[in-house]
Amino acid sequence: MFKSRVTDLFSIQYPIIQGGMVWCSGWKLASAVSNAGGLGIIGAGSMQVGLLEEHIIKCKQATNFPFAVNLPLLYENIELQIEVLIKQNVKIVFTSAGNPAKYCKFLKDAGIKVVHVVASLKFALKAQDAGCDAIVVEGFEAGGHNGRDETTTLCLLQLLKNQISIPIIAAGGIGTGDAILACKILGAEGVQLGSLFAASEESSAHENFKHLIYESKEGDTDLVLKKLNPVRLLKNSFYNEIKQLEIDGATTETLKSKLGKGRAKKGIYEGDLVEGEIEIGQIAAIINQSKSVSEIMKQLVDEYNEAYKKHFC
Amino acid sequence: MFKSRVTDLFSIQYPIIQGGMVWCSGWKLASAVSNAGGLGIIGAGSMQVGLLEEHIIKCKQATNFPFAVNLPLLYENIELQIEVLIKQNVKIVFTSAGNPAKYCKFLKDAGIKVVHVVASLKFALKAQDAGCDAIVVEGFEAGGHNGRDETTTLCLLQLLKNQISIPIIAAGGIGTGDAILACKILGAEGVQLGSLFAASEESSAHENFKHLIYESKEGDTDLVLKKLNPVRLLKNSFYNEIKQLEIDGATTETLKSKLGKGRAKKGIYEGDLVEGEIEIGQIAAIINQSKSVSEIMKQLVDEYNEAYKKHFC
Repeated sequence: MFKSRVTDLFSIQYPIIQGGMVWCSGWKLASAVSNAGGLGIIGAGSMQVGLLEEHIIKCKQATNFPFAVNLPLLYENIELQIEVLIKQNVKIVFTSAGNPAKYCKFLKDAGIKVVHVVASLKFALKAQDAGCDAIVVEGFEAGGHNGRDETTTLCLLQLLKNQISIPIIAAGGIGTGDAILACKILGAEGVQLGSLFAASEESSAHENFKHLIYESKEGDTDLVLKKLNPVRLLKNSFYNEIKQLEIDGATTETLKSKLGKGRAKKGIYEGDLVEGEIEIGQIAAIINQSKSVSEIMKQLVDEYNEAYKKHFC
Repeated sequence: MFKSRVTDLFSIQYPIIQGGMVWCSGWKLASAVSNAGGLGIIGAGSMQVGLLEEHIIKCKQATNFPFAVNLPLLYENIELQIEVLIKQNVKIVFTSAGNPAKYCKFLKDAGIKVVHVVASLKFALKAQDAGCDAIVVEGFEAGGHNGRDETTTLCLLQLLKNQISIPIIAAGGIGTGDAILACKILGAEGVQLGSLFAASEESSAHENFKHLIYESKEGDTDLVLKKLNPVRLLKNSFYNEIKQLEIDGATTETLKSKLGKGRAKKGIYEGDLVEGEIEIGQIAAIINQSKSVSEIMKQLVDEYNEAYKKHFC
């Protein structure tokens, strides 16, 4: 019932992929997801090369199942990171935030499966042309950095229908097994979940961050910093300041200066709920307690099976 | 396969409802949708009382199937409009843009089925408490006026799971039969579509408006005027002016003054693509040609059946 080109591509049991989120997705989270039958991803975005290598080595020790590394293509030390991936024999790489054409062939020639994250049909077609093995399409409701078109997951999947031949992985706003089945109906052969795993026990996010997620309600996130790089944040004190600046028409320079450096680390990893960025998706509103990765995976699979039986048996 | 509490409630063949959109949804569109097995809705929002009565009378002449009237509760002459509905024996009313508690009981006592349009779990619960027979939950991707929380259709439906006992009708971003089936999986027993019907042959929108929709691509709509009343518009010249004002931090007063009166009529009904508001949803990007209501309905039903068979037979 879960078999698809995505489960075949990665040799995994369930087509459930954990987003490679900065400050959340170390070896502990990635290996837990892979051990539970999904695909865990180490988020290289917040790691220096040495730390990335350490996480890959620990992940290999913690699981015998496939896992991946997410590589934002905009970082300066990208070629050093790729060297580490090849040296450590990483088999699957998810690229994001940049042009896949530059590295796709190189990675594939090294025997690596390459998946690129996009937020529009236009870039989905480019990723396909670049030779990617699959794409993640991420809608407006997703947490963290986000596309400029603001197209939602539901609309994106309909836009991609009959336009894309490589496997599609849906992301943004997915928090239940029902939603996984719904995305399948809409043509996605797999899903990528961020928020649920960011708030899980195995996430390396700070406990303060996780507890704020448990307490959050609908409408508590918003997409801001559109003049720089759109990002979905939970509405905390830092958010309120940014929002007010935006309402008042602040320039790019003012916003850049207010943002400064390291806000995501401060919020997510250090648990500074006042001054940090709290990156999370709209679906955070349904998360209300601490769960382990295996509990989350079991719930998703159970809900999926239940929805399937309810509607089709 | 299409039977649900929504088809039972309205005595219709397919749980496909046409949104009661201003300047698009006269008797011609509503009767065409009802004749094709869905539920057509006359949009009273843009009508004076006399014109509304005329449309109801013509709709009754044009179809023997059930139809509804959409009543925005914020209009001044609302009680006169309700009088007309009762006089003309309208059986189903969709209320929107206001508090349903004030009129729900009155309408129900008059033998009218009442459905309220909401954009959040919070207001869904209020509508249920007010005694509504069903709710429409409309996501961020919908065209025209929109909720403040910006929650997408996919997230809204998951938020409502196990929280709402009256029938749920999903709206916002639905443009294919696959999406209708996906919404069913997510707990919606019916769907409401705006954009596809706004661009249909029977819509009373101007041909200029319809042609602009056929040509539009992903990313061509945006939610603006958030300081007043958020509205999703196609990016035309008027939109660009509003957007620039917002980027520069324009006050509510400046925006109000720029907006003026009658922009929606100008854009949708009079076909002024420069100075008018072009209200349409994100899913407009998949609409690329003129179709009749019966062609649209047939395509939705065929796609739904195909998706069903593909995944469950």
